[in-house]
Amino acid sequence: MLEHIPTKSDLIEAHQRILPFIHKTPVYTSSWFDSLAGKNCYFKGEHLQKTGAFKARGAMNAVLVNDAEGKAYGFLTHSSGNHGAALAWAASQIGAKAYIVMPDNAPKTKIAAVEQYGGIITFCAPTLDAREATADQVQKETGAVFIHPYDNYDIIAGQATATIELLEAQPNLELLFVPVGGGGLLSGAALANQYFGNAKVIGCEPENANDAYQSFQAGKRIPVQNPDTIADGLRTSLGTRNFEIIQQYVHEIITASEDELKQAWRFTTSRLKQLVEPSAAAGLAVALKHGVGTSGIILCGGNMDLDPFV
Amino acid sequence: MLEHIPTKSDLIEAHQRILPFIHKTPVYTSSWFDSLAGKNCYFKGEHLQKTGAFKARGAMNAVLVNDAEGKAYGFLTHSSGNHGAALAWAASQIGAKAYIVMPDNAPKTKIAAVEQYGGIITFCAPTLDAREATADQVQKETGAVFIHPYDNYDIIAGQATATIELLEAQPNLELLFVPVGGGGLLSGAALANQYFGNAKVIGCEPENANDAYQSFQAGKRIPVQNPDTIADGLRTSLGTRNFEIIQQYVHEIITASEDELKQAWRFTTSRLKQLVEPSAAAGLAVALKHGVGTSGIILCGGNMDLDPFV
Repeated sequence: MLEHIPTKSDLIEAHQRILPFIHKTPVYTSSWFDSLAGKNCYFKGEHLQKTGAFKARGAMNAVLVNDAEGKAYGFLTHSSGNHGAALAWAASQIGAKAYIVMPDNAPKTKIAAVEQYGGIITFCAPTLDAREATADQVQKETGAVFIHPYDNYDIIAGQATATIELLEAQPNLELLFVPVGGGGLLSGAALANQYFGNAKVIGCEPENANDAYQSFQAGKRIPVQNPDTIADGLRTSLGTRNFEIIQQYVHEIITASEDELKQAWRFTTSRLKQLVEPSAAAGLAVALKHGVGTSGIILCGGNMDLDPFV
Repeated sequence: MLEHIPTKSDLIEAHQRILPFIHKTPVYTSSWFDSLAGKNCYFKGEHLQKTGAFKARGAMNAVLVNDAEGKAYGFLTHSSGNHGAALAWAASQIGAKAYIVMPDNAPKTKIAAVEQYGGIITFCAPTLDAREATADQVQKETGAVFIHPYDNYDIIAGQATATIELLEAQPNLELLFVPVGGGGLLSGAALANQYFGNAKVIGCEPENANDAYQSFQAGKRIPVQNPDTIADGLRTSLGTRNFEIIQQYVHEIITASEDELKQAWRFTTSRLKQLVEPSAAAGLAVALKHGVGTSGIILCGGNMDLDPFV
C-alpha cells in the first residue's frame, strides 16, 4: 500500500497491474464541439469503463496491491456512488469478498449494481457519521481492508491511468479538463500530466459544490455541506491526500453553473450519442468557456438514473 | 433512378457511391446481453451515423443518383422525422437545396436538425393529406426532385448498405433483427442478406403499430391509423415497394410490447451507454425473446427528445 505521493514508476506499475482487467477506453472527437469550443478536443470515454466509470481503475489497483489480505478478509468501503460498485467488481475479479456500506436512501440502481458484482451491503443512516461508524463496525467484525473512495494513494495511482492513456493517444495536449469531486480523478490526472504530459490541468467543478475552488483559493481545505447539483458524483469534498497533490500540480479550478452543466450533458448525449452521467459533463462545460489549444476532456462515468425517460 | 428491385450490383454501386460521405459505423457486443438473450449478438450502431440515423445512407444515395437534376432544382420530401434531416444533410453535401415539408406540430429538435443542415422548411397541417398536398405545391413551384422517405428503390438500396457492412463484420449471422416502420431499412436489410448473407431476417415492430405484422400475415398491405407507441420512428405503415420486397425476402415479423421496448431501450442506454431512440430498441426487444444463433441487431438511430432529463 502506497504511503507517499505516487511517483512516475508507481503510476507505470499501477497501469501494468490493472491492464489485464480494465478497458482501454476509446477517445472521441467532435468537429461540431470543436467549432463551439474553439479548440481541438479529445474526449476520454470512461463511461465505457468496466462498471461504467473510471472508479474501476483505482479500485482494481487497490485490490491488487492488497491482494493477499483482501483474499483472506475481504475489502470494505462506504459509498453511495460508483466506488462501491467498482470495489465490489474489483474484489470479485480476484475472488475476494467486498463489504459495501451504503446509505439506506441510495438509489436503487446503485444498490443493484453493487449486488450484481456480489458486494455484501450493510445499510446505514444517510449521514457521514453513520457511514463511518458502520464501516468501523464492519471492519472490526470482518478484518476487511478498508479502501477509501479517493483519499488513498493506490486509488489515486489507479485513477491516473485514465490520463496516461489519454496522453498516449494525444501526447501534445495543452489543456486538460478534469471533473473534481473528492479529487481522486483530478489528483491522478495532475500526477500523470506532471510525469507524462505538459498540459495546463484544470479542475472542473459545479458552482453549487465549489469546495475545491474555495480550498484552492484559500490554500486550505474548506469542505461544503450538502451541496445541491445535478452532478451527483461531484458533491463530495476534497480528500487530504487529493488536495495536497492538487495544490502542487493543478493549475486552476473553474466552476460551471447548473445551466452550463445541463447544456454540456445535453451536447454529449444528443451529439456524441454517448450516455454520460451529469458529473461527466463538467469537463465539457468548462472547456466550452475556457482557453485555446488542444484539449483533453475526461468523460468520467455513465451511471445515471433513467427513470425520467422510461 | 432505380425502377426495379435493386440487384446485387445495384447494392454494391450504392455502397461505393455513398462511402465517401457516410460513416462506417461500429459494431458493438455485450456479454451481459448475450447471456440474457441466449445468443451471440452484434449491434450495428447506426445512431452514430451522419445525422444520427441510418436514413443518411438512403438519402445520400438518392441525392447522388439524382445529382444533376437536384443541383438544378433541389430536392423535396415530407417528413416529421429523421428522413427530413437526412435529405437536407445529403443535399448540402453536393451544394443542392432541400425543401422539407413538415407538420406544424413537429418536435422542435427535428425542426432544428433540418434547419442546421440548411433545409428549407414549409410547414403544413399534421395530416398525411396536407403533407402530400403541400409537397405537390412545393414541387410545382420549384421543380424539385421528390425523394420519398422509404417507398423508393434508391432509398432502399442505400439503407441496405448498413446490413452489407454488418455482414462484412460478421459474415455468419444466423438471425438478423431489423426494426420496421415504413420498411425502408427492413427491405434493404432483406435484400442485402439475400445477396451477401444467409440469415433468417426478422422484422421487429411495436405491437401498437403492427401493420407490417398484419400485412405480412394477410398477404396484402393493411395500414394502421395513428398508432401510439414510444417507438415514434416505427409509427409509419409499409410502402408498396417495401412490402413487395419484405414478402419475398423477410422470414418473419415479430412484435414487441411497449414494456418490452422500454426494457430494451433501458438496456441499451444503461449497459451499452449508447443513446439510441426508442425505435432502435425494437430489434433488441425481439432478440431477447426469439431464437438461438449468432445474431445481428440494427440500432437504427439516436435522435430523441432529451427534455425529460434536463
